[in-house]
Amino acid sequence: MKLVRFGAAGQEKPGVVDADGKIRDVSAIVPDFSGEHLSDASLDKLRKADLASLPVAPADSRLGPVVGRVGNFLCIGLNYVDHAHESNLPIPSEPIIFNKSPSSITGPNDKVYIPIGSEKTDWEVEIAVVIGKDAYNVSEESALNYVAGYTICNDVSERAWQIERGGQWTKGKSAPSFGPIGPWLVTRDEISDPQNLDMWLDVNGARVQTGNTSTMIFTIAHIVSYLSKFMKLEAGDVITTGTPPGVGMGMKPPRYLKAGDTVRLGIAGLGEQQQSVVATNG
Amino acid sequence: MKLVRFGAAGQEKPGVVDADGKIRDVSAIVPDFSGEHLSDASLDKLRKADLASLPVAPADSRLGPVVGRVGNFLCIGLNYVDHAHESNLPIPSEPIIFNKSPSSITGPNDKVYIPIGSEKTDWEVEIAVVIGKDAYNVSEESALNYVAGYTICNDVSERAWQIERGGQWTKGKSAPSFGPIGPWLVTRDEISDPQNLDMWLDVNGARVQTGNTSTMIFTIAHIVSYLSKFMKLEAGDVITTGTPPGVGMGMKPPRYLKAGDTVRLGIAGLGEQQQSVVATNG
Repeated sequence: MKLVRFGAAGQEKPGVVDADGKIRDVSAIVPDFSGEHLSDASLDKLRKADLASLPVAPADSRLGPVVGRVGNFLCIGLNYVDHAHESNLPIPSEPIIFNKSPSSITGPNDKVYIPIGSEKTDWEVEIAVVIGKDAYNVSEESALNYVAGYTICNDVSERAWQIERGGQWTKGKSAPSFGPIGPWLVTRDEISDPQNLDMWLDVNGARVQTGNTSTMIFTIAHIVSYLSKFMKLEAGDVITTGTPPGVGMGMKPPRYLKAGDTVRLGIAGLGEQQQSVVATNG
Repeated sequence: MKLVRFGAAGQEKPGVVDADGKIRDVSAIVPDFSGEHLSDASLDKLRKADLASLPVAPADSRLGPVVGRVGNFLCIGLNYVDHAHESNLPIPSEPIIFNKSPSSITGPNDKVYIPIGSEKTDWEVEIAVVIGKDAYNVSEESALNYVAGYTICNDVSERAWQIERGGQWTKGKSAPSFGPIGPWLVTRDEISDPQNLDMWLDVNGARVQTGNTSTMIFTIAHIVSYLSKFMKLEAGDVITTGTPPGVGMGMKPPRYLKAGDTVRLGIAGLGEQQQSVVATNG
């Protein structure tokens, strides 16, 4: 299934994309795609629903982030070997974890706001995992059973704040609108191999990132298991798993986003996002 | 006011400590101490309530964490000059931010579980701030207006995982039970000067940490304002603000917690916590 949340920011309703590509309002079956409503049992209820009998969302509905009330928004750093090279950083020997603020989360096609004082706002196409049930100390073999599904995240990053402001990356990853998530939460049964998906990102129509999840250093199953040794992952947590080469910081000279730019990004089977870049208060 | 959440884990009800020290059940007035229910308007409703007419919580009630549904659990590293010294790390020129997982949060007197594989579980008494309304790009002068109140946090830390596992501190700060918060959320009107509070921590009855919030490198007002430049702080977010000297890692030789230990800690005006240390699955 392709799950969406549609409607005004903060008032999104849950929907399922039907065979014709229409969004069916499933709020009569599940109140939201958040927490316990991402469990296998909850998703099975939706699978059995007669979508054709459910209301169609307005055609011009805004898409919201595909998960509501995210508790923990985790990121893996430098998880593609070529991206580590372009960042002039060593290949990590184990996953690097950092956090984005949950308040950075927006819809897949919402505007990206350049924060006040930012000069180095950058893009990163990533495949993100949405946790479906609590996971603590789970094996790599069982890890994907704890995943509700997959989506796209643009891990928008302020490079000066990430790197030049005291060592911990959170500072450069957390501004409002720095976490577009969507368009769909594609349930895990529809993605037969999450480690073989093409991914790309365009800025103003020109391709800048091209990659495939096959070149990840640490697989999604490894990441989920690894994280679960350090913390309890909870249903509704989002893990974004790193970006392939082609970020602005790695260009010579470096290139960063400015008001008026348009970013488009996509991953095979997971759809596309498009964001207009604007100034804060502008 | 002294706000508490009492009852079984995950089913806590909100309460207010009355003049006799009894917990009055205020769930008829406010559903929980979380998100928007921490606003000045919501807290004013409680101030006007006739506590004597409200039910008294059972005398043996467990105290839960003082905030429910925490979205972002932020920490400031090395914020006391003597603690930076004992950690052999330079005095930071601006606040170091890192995250604890919200799933690490427990009640003030719940057990602390040594995670599987941990050999360096350590203690840290800290004053924590609970955000009362959303704050983005707020000035230092106005910052405390966005604070609902103060509480104690034991920022339990696995030092090997924090320091030896890939550079970002989150890994060592996030295990279940690593974030006891409480006993009370003391509203900000009751703490005339948050920068002059004695704090202490005992292990097995022997004092190991002694400090005062007056020796913070960055004040609470500075921290709230500073963080709000990088991210939108949301009502119900918790910021724990660093620890004074006396952690186990700084001892010669280093000393870490083991099953059977008891940790007690307190801050003037904010009460006390006590935790029994146990093995996971033990």
